[in-house]
Amino acid sequence: MILSHLSTQQAERHGEFRAFADRALVPQADRFDREQAISREVIADLAGQAYLGALIPKEFGGAGMGWIEYGLLTEELGRGCQSIRNFVAVDDMVAHSIHKWGTEEQKEQWLLRITSGRTLAAFALTEPDVGSDAAAVETTATADGTEIVLRGTKKWISFAQIADLFLVFAKLDGQHTAFLVERDTPGLSVEPIEGLLGLRGSMLGRITFDDCRIPATNLVGRPGVGLTFVASSALDLGRYSTAWGSVGLAQACLEASTEYAGRRAQYGTEISNHQLVQQLLADMLTDTVTARLLCHHAGVSKEQGEMEAVNHTLLAKYRASTIAVKAAADAVQIHGAQGIGAEASVQRHHRDAKVMEIIEGTTQIQQTMLGQFALRAAQL
Amino acid sequence: MILSHLSTQQAERHGEFRAFADRALVPQADRFDREQAISREVIADLAGQAYLGALIPKEFGGAGMGWIEYGLLTEELGRGCQSIRNFVAVDDMVAHSIHKWGTEEQKEQWLLRITSGRTLAAFALTEPDVGSDAAAVETTATADGTEIVLRGTKKWISFAQIADLFLVFAKLDGQHTAFLVERDTPGLSVEPIEGLLGLRGSMLGRITFDDCRIPATNLVGRPGVGLTFVASSALDLGRYSTAWGSVGLAQACLEASTEYAGRRAQYGTEISNHQLVQQLLADMLTDTVTARLLCHHAGVSKEQGEMEAVNHTLLAKYRASTIAVKAAADAVQIHGAQGIGAEASVQRHHRDAKVMEIIEGTTQIQQTMLGQFALRAAQL
Amino acid sequence: MILSHLSTQQAERHGEFRAFADRALVPQADRFDREQAISREVIADLAGQAYLGALIPKEFGGAGMGWIEYGLLTEELGRGCQSIRNFVAVDDMVAHSIHKWGTEEQKEQWLLRITSGRTLAAFALTEPDVGSDAAAVETTATADGTEIVLRGTKKWISFAQIADLFLVFAKLDGQHTAFLVERDTPGLSVEPIEGLLGLRGSMLGRITFDDCRIPATNLVGRPGVGLTFVASSALDLGRYSTAWGSVGLAQACLEASTEYAGRRAQYGTEISNHQLVQQLLADMLTDTVTARLLCHHAGVSKEQGEMEAVNHTLLAKYRASTIAVKAAADAVQIHGAQGIGAEASVQRHHRDAKVMEIIEGTTQIQQTMLGQFALRAAQL
Amino acid sequence: MILSHLSTQQAERHGEFRAFADRALVPQADRFDREQAISREVIADLAGQAYLGALIPKEFGGAGMGWIEYGLLTEELGRGCQSIRNFVAVDDMVAHSIHKWGTEEQKEQWLLRITSGRTLAAFALTEPDVGSDAAAVETTATADGTEIVLRGTKKWISFAQIADLFLVFAKLDGQHTAFLVERDTPGLSVEPIEGLLGLRGSMLGRITFDDCRIPATNLVGRPGVGLTFVASSALDLGRYSTAWGSVGLAQACLEASTEYAGRRAQYGTEISNHQLVQQLLADMLTDTVTARLLCHHAGVSKEQGEMEAVNHTLLAKYRASTIAVKAAADAVQIHGAQGIGAEASVQRHHRDAKVMEIIEGTTQIQQTMLGQFALRAAQL
Repeated sequence: MILSHLSTQQAERHGEFRAFADRALVPQADRFDREQAISREVIADLAGQAYLGALIPKEFGGAGMGWIEYGLLTEELGRGCQSIRNFVAVDDMVAHSIHKWGTEEQKEQWLLRITSGRTLAAFALTEPDVGSDAAAVETTATADGTEIVLRGTKKWISFAQIADLFLVFAKLDGQHTAFLVERDTPGLSVEPIEGLLGLRGSMLGRITFDDCRIPATNLVGRPGVGLTFVASSALDLGRYSTAWGSVGLAQACLEASTEYAGRRAQYGTEISNHQLVQQLLADMLTDTVTARLLCHHAGVSKEQGEMEAVNHTLLAKYRASTIAVKAAADAVQIHGAQGIGAEASVQRHHRDAKVMEIIEGTTQIQQTMLGQFALRAAQL
Repeated sequence: MILSHLSTQQAERHGEFRAFADRALVPQADRFDREQAISREVIADLAGQAYLGALIPKEFGGAGMGWIEYGLLTEELGRGCQSIRNFVAVDDMVAHSIHKWGTEEQKEQWLLRITSGRTLAAFALTEPDVGSDAAAVETTATADGTEIVLRGTKKWISFAQIADLFLVFAKLDGQHTAFLVERDTPGLSVEPIEGLLGLRGSMLGRITFDDCRIPATNLVGRPGVGLTFVASSALDLGRYSTAWGSVGLAQACLEASTEYAGRRAQYGTEISNHQLVQQLLADMLTDTVTARLLCHHAGVSKEQGEMEAVNHTLLAKYRASTIAVKAAADAVQIHGAQGIGAEASVQRHHRDAKVMEIIEGTTQIQQTMLGQFALRAAQL
Repeated sequence: MILSHLSTQQAERHGEFRAFADRALVPQADRFDREQAISREVIADLAGQAYLGALIPKEFGGAGMGWIEYGLLTEELGRGCQSIRNFVAVDDMVAHSIHKWGTEEQKEQWLLRITSGRTLAAFALTEPDVGSDAAAVETTATADGTEIVLRGTKKWISFAQIADLFLVFAKLDGQHTAFLVERDTPGLSVEPIEGLLGLRGSMLGRITFDDCRIPATNLVGRPGVGLTFVASSALDLGRYSTAWGSVGLAQACLEASTEYAGRRAQYGTEISNHQLVQQLLADMLTDTVTARLLCHHAGVSKEQGEMEAVNHTLLAKYRASTIAVKAAADAVQIHGAQGIGAEASVQRHHRDAKVMEIIEGTTQIQQTMLGQFALRAAQL
Repeated sequence: MILSHLSTQQAERHGEFRAFADRALVPQADRFDREQAISREVIADLAGQAYLGALIPKEFGGAGMGWIEYGLLTEELGRGCQSIRNFVAVDDMVAHSIHKWGTEEQKEQWLLRITSGRTLAAFALTEPDVGSDAAAVETTATADGTEIVLRGTKKWISFAQIADLFLVFAKLDGQHTAFLVERDTPGLSVEPIEGLLGLRGSMLGRITFDDCRIPATNLVGRPGVGLTFVASSALDLGRYSTAWGSVGLAQACLEASTEYAGRRAQYGTEISNHQLVQQLLADMLTDTVTARLLCHHAGVSKEQGEMEAVNHTLLAKYRASTIAVKAAADAVQIHGAQGIGAEASVQRHHRDAKVMEIIEGTTQIQQTMLGQFALRAAQL
C-alpha cells in the first residue's frame, strides 16, 4: 500500500522500481536461491538502471537519490530478491564509506568503478569469534614502511565469492581502522560458505589475510575511527537497507497470500472467507504498512539531518525484521502444503526473513540499544 | 517522540496540547477514575481552549482543525485522561454528525451550543443485545404526525449520565435512522452504569425510551442512512479518536516507565541497566512510535480526502489499541509491586487500555474487516 | 478439564474442593473485590473444612495433604476468589515455616492456633526499596538481653490489616534472619494499602517496626538462614500456590467464556460459531490444561522429594501466571462490552491475573533463574 | 528434562531410545536433509530395534508398546531426525489401520512384512485440491467384478518415492473408502516432489492412479468408513507422532542452544550470562517441558481408553507444533550467524518445525476443532 505522504514524484519512482523488480528480479529469485548465486547479468542490469551506489552524487557516477527514494528502491529490490538487495547493500556500504570518509584519490579511483558495476565491493567486518561486538575485531594491521600488512580471518562476508574490493576492518596498533583491499592482493584468499538457511544467493565467503600487503594509502579515514566513524555509518546504511528490504519481503508475502487465499477453496469456499485466514491477512497488511511507515520515518529523519536519525533507523530495522519473520511464517501457513513446496516463493521468504533478524545487529542487541534510547528519548 | 514529518506549526500546537494535558488533566485523572466522574470544570476548561468540536469550522464555533492537528490534540487528551478523551470523542461524534448530515436548522440550533460546552452530547447506538452488529438495532421509531415516537433501550452509552443531547439510532419502518433527542424529553430515562474496568470516569448509562416523543424535524439525514452514512462517519471519527488516544496511553506508559526504571534500583543498579527491562522499554518505544505513525498516516489520508482513509483509520485503531494494551501491561510489570498500587497511574492505564480493544469495534471485528481490505488493497 | 492421571481419590477430593468454591467463594468474590476485604465468616468456613494449614500434619491440626491434593485445593480457591487463595497462601507460608524450621515450643504455641483459624498469620518480607532482591532487606534486628529490637518498614504485606502474627525478616548483625512477631507488640503499627489493581480483597498493609521488642525465643531457625532456608521454602510454597491459583483463574475464565460464547448472538448466530472466538477458546483451553499439567508435574516432583522440585515449581509459576493473564484478557474480549462491566467476573480476573505475574517473583526474575536452570538441566 | 511421573521402566526405555537416536540418527540427519533422502540402512536399523510398527502386538511382529513408551520413542526419533520420525509415522499409520480395520487376511499378508521393514508403507490421502477438508477427496474407485479401478491423483505423499504399499482413500459410489494398493500395480505412477522447506528427507511424491486395478479384497474396513473410521484413527496416530516429534525437535534446540550459549562469548562473557539469552533459554525449557507434558497426558488418556483421548492428542499436537516453531526460531537466534550456516542443525530444525504446524491438520483447523471441544469440555 503506497504511503499517503509520498510525493507524486516519489510515487512515480516507486512505480519504476516496482516494474524493474517484476521484470528483472522476481522471475529469477527462486533460481538464484536454488543455485546459491546471483548472475552477472542482473548486476549489469542494476548498473544500467543506475541502481548501484544510488545515494552517491552523480559526479561520482551515482544517482544522487534522497533517502526516501533510496528506501523505495530497496523495498522493491527486497520484494524481488533478497540476495540482490543484499548485494546492493554491501556494495553501497563500501561506496558510501569511500565517499564519506575516503581521500579524494580513493574517490577518484573507486567510485565510478563501483557505481558502474565494474568493481564489485564487499564489507568485511565480522570474524569467526566477533559478531555483534565489533570493537573486539582480532584481525591486525601492521605498518611496514609505505605498506600495511594484514593478518587474520573474516567470516560470513556477503559476496566475498565475487567481490573485487573489500572494505576490511582491523586493529592498527590496537586502533580500530578501515582499509581497502583488492581481491587479487597476494595473501588474500576466499573460501565459499554454502548451504545457508536464507539469503542463499549471497555468495558468502570466509576471507583469510595471510601477511597480505596493501599500500598505506588504502587506509580509509584515520587510524582509530574504523568503528566509530567508518563502520558505524556503513552499518547505519546497512540497517536502513535491511529494514526496507524487510518491508519488501513482507509485501511479497502479502501479495502472494492474498492472491492464493482468493483462489484456493476448502470447505466449499475460498479460504479468504475463513475468519482465521482473514486474521492472518489483517495482521500481514497492518504489519507491512507499519514497517513501511517506520522505514519512511527513518528516511524523513535522515533527509532532515536529524541527530537521532541513526536511532530511528535502528528502530525501523528492529521492527521491520520481526514483521518480516511473522509475515513469512503466516504466508507459508496460508499456503498450507503448497507453502512448503519448491514452487512457492513464500518458503524462500520464510528462510530469508529469519536472516533479517540476525544481520546488521541481532534483535537482542537492538533491544538493549533501543532500551537505552528510550530512556533518553521517551519525552522528546 | 515527535514525528519527524510534523510541520513546525504542528509541532508547536502539539506543545500547547501537551502543556494543557499536563496542567488540566494529568493531576486529576486518577481522581476522575476513582470517583467515576469527570468534573464540570474540566469541561469548561476544554471549551475555553476551543477543544470541543475542534474539527468543526469556526463559523459554527469550532476550531477548524485539520485531521492531524486534531490527532495530536487527541493523543494529548488520551495521555492525560482517557475519560476526558472519550468525552471529547462522543461530543465530537455528535457535532460532526450534525455538521455533516444535519439540516441548516439543526446546525444553527446545536453546533454553537456543543462547541461552547453548554450542551453536552452523547452517541447512543449500542443496545443490550446489539454490539458490533449495528445493523441489528432493535430500538424503534414510529412516525405519528409531526412527531416520532421512540421505544427501546440503549446500553453502555458514554456520558449518558450528564449528556444534554443524544444522537439516537433506531429503526423507522425498518430503516436504520438517526435522531437527535434532548435529555429532558418525557419518556427518556437514564440509569448509571458503574464499576467498570476502565474509562471509569466515562459516566456510562443505560437509556430507556418509553414512548419518547420528539419532533420529526429531529431526524438527522434521511430515513435509512442511519448506519451507512451517519453512524459510519461518526464511528470513523470515534475510531480515529480511539486510535490517537491509544497512542497517548502508550506514551504515558513510556514516560512513566522510563522515569521509574531510571531511578528504581534492584541488585545494586538501576533496573534500566537490566537487559530484560531494556527490552520492555525498547518495545514500548518502538510500539508507541509505530502507533503514532499509523495514526498520522490515517490523518494524512483523511486530509488528502482519500477513499481508503476510513480503512487507514481502522488499521490505526486496530494496531494502536493492541499496542496500548501491551504497553500498559509492561509498564505495570516494570513498576513491580508499585505498579499495582493506587499511586501508580500505570494501573489505571492497564485498565483503560483493555477497553480500547473493545470500543469502536472489537479487535476481532477489525481483523475480519482488515482481512477483506487486504484482499483488495494488497497491491495498491 | 480433569487431568487423566489423577487417582480416583484425587478426583473425588477435587470434586469436594470445587463444590466448596462454588458454595463459599464464587458468590462472594466480586463483593470481596469491591469492598477490598474478605470476611471473617469465610475464614471460619475454611478452618471448618480443614483448609487452613492443609499441608501441616494432623497432629498439629493440619489436614496432612499431599502436594497434589493441596494443589487441587489451591486451584479451586483461586477459581473461586483469588484473595482467599492468597490468604490461605500467606497463612500456610507461615505455618509451613514454623513447622519446618521452628522450635518445638514454637510449633506447640502456634500451629494449632493457625490451622484452626484463631491466629491469622502473614508473611513480612518485602520492603519499600526491597522487592525481588530479598537479600537486601533493610529492617534490622538488634539483640538486647533476652529480647530483640526490630526497626524498619515492610510494605505490600498481604493481610497485614487483619493478621495476628507476622513472620518478619530482618538483618541481625548483618545476617538475614526470621522472627515471629505478634500484632499487638508495642512499636508495631500497620497502615492499610488500598485501591490496588487486583487481589483487592487482600487487605495489604505497610508495617512499621519502631523499636519493636520481641522475645529472643521468637527467632525462627538460626541467624543467617532467614533467606536461604526460611524464606526460600516459604516462597517455594508461595509460588506453588500462585501457580495453582493461576490455573484456577484461567479455568474460571474458560468456564465464563464458553458459557457466554454459547449464548451471546451477533450476526445471526452464537458467537461461538465465529472462528475468531473459537480460536480464543482453543487457546484458553489449551493453556489452562498446560498450566494445570505444569503445576501437577511440580506436585509430583515435590511428592517424590526431587532436588529440582523447586525449579519445577518456578517453571510452573512462570508459565501459569502468563497463561492466566492471556486467558483473562481474552475472556474480557469474548465478553465485549459486558466484559468491562461490573457484573462480569472476568473483569476482576483481568485485574487479578496481572498481579500473578508480579508476586512471588516477577516474570523477569524467573526468566533469569529459569535460563540458568536450562543451562544445567537441558539434558537431564 | 525427564518427566517426574515416568515409571522406572519408562525412563529406562527412554534412555535406550535416546542412545539409538544419538547413534543412528543424529550423525546422519543433516545429510539426509541435504540429500533429500533417508537411507535403507537406517530403515533396517529401525526394524532391527523393533521400532517399526511398535504399537502393533508382538504376534504380528510389532513391539506391543504402550502409548507412552511409543511417545518417548517418537520424541527421540524426532530429536534425531524428523524425516525418520515421519517415516515411522506413516509406516505405522498404515500398519495401525490394517491392524484395526483390516481383515484377517490383510493382517496376515502385510503386518509382518511392514514391521520387519520388508514392505514400506505410506498413507495417501491428500490431493492437489484437497487438504484439510478430507471429506472432499476426488479420487474415485469403481467396482468392476472382483476388481476395483482407481482414478485420480494424490499429492504431498510422504515416502511415496520408496513405499511398496499405499493406503489410498477414494470415493466408491460417492462413499469415502480406504484401499491397499501395491506400488507395482499397473496404472500407478509416482513423481518425486523435491526442494521442500523442511522434512526434506521425506521423499514426497505425487501419485497418479490411471485406471489402476486392484483386487476388491484390498478394501480396508467397509465402504463409507474411509474417513470416519480408517483415516480418523490413522490421523490420530499421525498427530500423536507429530506432537511427540515436535517435543523432540524442541529438545534438540534446547540442547544445542544451551551448549552453544555456554561457550560462545561476546562482550567479554559467555552469552548465557546475558539476560536476553537467558530469557530465550527459559522459554525454550518451559515450552519443551510443556509440550512433553501435553503429549504425555494424551498418552495417559489413550492408555486409559478415554473417549476424549483424540481431543487430548489434538491439543498436544496443536501446542507442541507451535512450541517447536518458536524453539527453533530462538535457537537460530541464539546461534546468530552460526545459526544460519550449514553446520548448525538448528537451521534444519527451523525449517522442519514450520512443517509441523501444517501436517496432520493445520494450526487453523485445530483452533476451530479445539474451540468446539472447549465449549463441550470446559467444565469436565
